[in-house]
Amino acid sequence: MSIEKQTYRAGPYKNVFAQAVKTGNVIHLSGQVGMDSKGKLGADMVEQTEIAYANIKHVLSEMGASLDNIVDETMFVTDMGEFMTKGEALLGARAKAYGGVPEVCQTVVQVTALVMPELKIEIKCVAHV
Amino acid sequence: MSIEKQTYRAGPYKNVFAQAVKTGNVIHLSGQVGMDSKGKLGADMVEQTEIAYANIKHVLSEMGASLDNIVDETMFVTDMGEFMTKGEALLGARAKAYGGVPEVCQTVVQVTALVMPELKIEIKCVAHV
Amino acid sequence: MSIEKQTYRAGPYKNVFAQAVKTGNVIHLSGQVGMDSKGKLGADMVEQTEIAYANIKHVLSEMGASLDNIVDETMFVTDMGEFMTKGEALLGARAKAYGGVPEVCQTVVQVTALVMPELKIEIKCVAHV
Repeated sequence: MSIEKQTYRAGPYKNVFAQAVKTGNVIHLSGQVGMDSKGKLGADMVEQTEIAYANIKHVLSEMGASLDNIVDETMFVTDMGEFMTKGEALLGARAKAYGGVPEVCQTVVQVTALVMPELKIEIKCVAHV
Repeated sequence: MSIEKQTYRAGPYKNVFAQAVKTGNVIHLSGQVGMDSKGKLGADMVEQTEIAYANIKHVLSEMGASLDNIVDETMFVTDMGEFMTKGEALLGARAKAYGGVPEVCQTVVQVTALVMPELKIEIKCVAHV
Repeated sequence: MSIEKQTYRAGPYKNVFAQAVKTGNVIHLSGQVGMDSKGKLGADMVEQTEIAYANIKHVLSEMGASLDNIVDETMFVTDMGEFMTKGEALLGARAKAYGGVPEVCQTVVQVTALVMPELKIEIKCVAHV
């Protein structure tokens, strides 16, 4: 069956996977992490969260969408203790990115590693337009 | 791009995330766990599974849907050994919740922590209406 | 609310979950692993990846679709070190399965166990038709 896809590719792995794929009114995003396009890594989970949302915002803008279009978030964290301890600051950074109360579902689980040892959080989103 | 969302919010984190977001004919649900609305925690993975499905059922009913609408489940468990050992009882509780053979996809992985140390299983569902 | 589902069931757990559920133009797939229908397990993560994509291809073909329909992949691996060390071979096997540059999103996280101790990778896909 044929399918029309719109993709956004960027970064060193752009031939491996797309940062976003849109089909119909659904946009799937690859998990975004706390490293910016220049390779700068957030110092802790809060800074990495800020950078991850900046990345998500950029990817969505390349697809003609914004954070308002997100319907679902899965957060993979490497240290639930840090997630809880810094929860107020982390969720504050998230609320600031969204510009208010996010209209999204959220699931948070602790995994043992992300694609680089320095990464503390990866956020996988689904958006609808 | 504008998008019309229907949300259901409940619990202490209702300003952080919605329990469900519906756009078009898709309902995303936040991961549901084995603690009921009064804070009662299931004693083992089987009881937590029963409570999680009761929570999923409630969230879906608030969206005008039921377990029959679920198309995909991801189960995050903290002890795959317990999941396998108690598999018959756990899947029995699930089949009872569904009222028969579930018409859903399923993926089960072991993570190292959920949002509270006592939690043994979190079930993330996607439903279509 | 009623919903029309098309499912594909196979294997020892066919009464527990479907390998794929299609509703409208979306196909959800259960996580596929590196064991074939005869119980043969891939020797390492690369071989398991080859088998997993053969399984995904088969499941999609039963739904009248192909790997070209995949929009999103989540890879759950048990050893990120092996994933990185064997990355070229693993991604080569994946590119071969796709027959070119995959037009898909990808998220990779390390979990501590899959449903069998021998499994090294599980791939959960969403496809659109």
